[in-house]
Amino acid sequence: MVGVRVDGTTRLMGIIGDPISQARTPQAINPIFAGKGADIVCVPLHVPADDLATVWAGLKAMPNLIGFGVTLPHKQIVPQLCDSLDPLAARIGAVNVVRREPDGRFRGYQFDGQGFVRGLIAQGVVLQGRDALMIGAGGAAVAIAFALQQAGIARLVVANRTFDKAEALARAVNEATGTSFATAGAPTPESGQLVVNATSLGLNDSDPLPLDVSMLQAGMTVAEVIAKPEITALLRAAEQRGAAIHSGIHMITGQVSLIADHMIAALG
Amino acid sequence: MVGVRVDGTTRLMGIIGDPISQARTPQAINPIFAGKGADIVCVPLHVPADDLATVWAGLKAMPNLIGFGVTLPHKQIVPQLCDSLDPLAARIGAVNVVRREPDGRFRGYQFDGQGFVRGLIAQGVVLQGRDALMIGAGGAAVAIAFALQQAGIARLVVANRTFDKAEALARAVNEATGTSFATAGAPTPESGQLVVNATSLGLNDSDPLPLDVSMLQAGMTVAEVIAKPEITALLRAAEQRGAAIHSGIHMITGQVSLIADHMIAALG
Repeated sequence: MVGVRVDGTTRLMGIIGDPISQARTPQAINPIFAGKGADIVCVPLHVPADDLATVWAGLKAMPNLIGFGVTLPHKQIVPQLCDSLDPLAARIGAVNVVRREPDGRFRGYQFDGQGFVRGLIAQGVVLQGRDALMIGAGGAAVAIAFALQQAGIARLVVANRTFDKAEALARAVNEATGTSFATAGAPTPESGQLVVNATSLGLNDSDPLPLDVSMLQAGMTVAEVIAKPEITALLRAAEQRGAAIHSGIHMITGQVSLIADHMIAALG
Repeated sequence: MVGVRVDGTTRLMGIIGDPISQARTPQAINPIFAGKGADIVCVPLHVPADDLATVWAGLKAMPNLIGFGVTLPHKQIVPQLCDSLDPLAARIGAVNVVRREPDGRFRGYQFDGQGFVRGLIAQGVVLQGRDALMIGAGGAAVAIAFALQQAGIARLVVANRTFDKAEALARAVNEATGTSFATAGAPTPESGQLVVNATSLGLNDSDPLPLDVSMLQAGMTVAEVIAKPEITALLRAAEQRGAAIHSGIHMITGQVSLIADHMIAALG
């Protein structure tokens, strides 16, 4: 872990959550700031849910606080506190980064989906014109669906235990983008697809697999949102069947790199 | 400058002020925390005077914020916001460190005087039983007078342009300590004395000298509160006349080391 230099001119980025000790943003983003010559340090801010409004006012009053990442339990409440929302964050209804804009206001952004895509691109995964299957229709899935559409994926099948949620997700993406990009469907991978696990199945050893791995084969790429374990049971099975695999760790790396650029861009 | 490591478990110490870019506490104290294996990072918090109460509430609501240093313009207002004051800070009427106590409350402390004394001791300056002359009776002077009494200085003469202020300072110290330690007097150094400049004269090149340097001689130690320039015109003149000299930089070093120990002590 690279050390960071802090002096009186250093700007602050926070990461708010409760608990906060598990947060990995500081050690991931500080070396990026340092590498880009940006005089910014990211620090953990332990913010209990009941105190969010009080802390929010305090953070806003400190001009050298350039923004903060948002983690549990604040992701759903933060959009209501922001002065404005990036259109993507507004659509998804969740914010994971708040930035002080040049006019001093706090604007909410959402980088889950773009971070996932940046991670895929950084690993050389082909997206343009490819079909994709996504398991899951929760918060991360919505963000990823929008980002896959933007990244040039041709068609997306959304599979979810609750079929209605998959249909609602597909409809939302299609309406917002004016396309027929997404459809709700079965969790059945097809030849050459990018297969995305956007559920939390795999976080625990005892979780069932999110899909029938006997259908995975060479030519497919199986990608995870789960970063810990770095290689889930799904990825292990996919690799055994000859599919390319993509760990959730790349989503974190991709997202942190995007967020670093985004924070630096506001310094002017 | 040593780099600091920040992760999710790192505790925060702030330094509040407006402006804040000139603050030297972070780069001075972070290497001390690192050297002691304390997982603490000190960061600058830019807090405009009008927003102090708002920021105060926000800082208090974040349990991993262990306290903060206080610089201009907040030193006089902070005592009113603290939940309690260390007796020394209460006497002096100014706070330069606020610490979150184990019960969660914010208590105000004042380390100017003790920092000055720790700097003298670290440089091997003899204090026990010695007489001292102090020029100045402002905030720093009050803190230093108390600290010199505690450090074993035998008698202190306080010289100030406004004689009444020198008398008030001497009276306050004597009453608080139940001694006749301090007297108001002329700025006339005597053989063997510790001579302290506790005025701001010397900050600027054009400032007059705080006392008649022709009276300085070998056997005296001339000490500064001014750290920049590191060697003031007074110290240069004192050295030329054979007196020992002690830069204001040692007060900063002494204070930062004290404050680091003080913050670590509350972590339990």
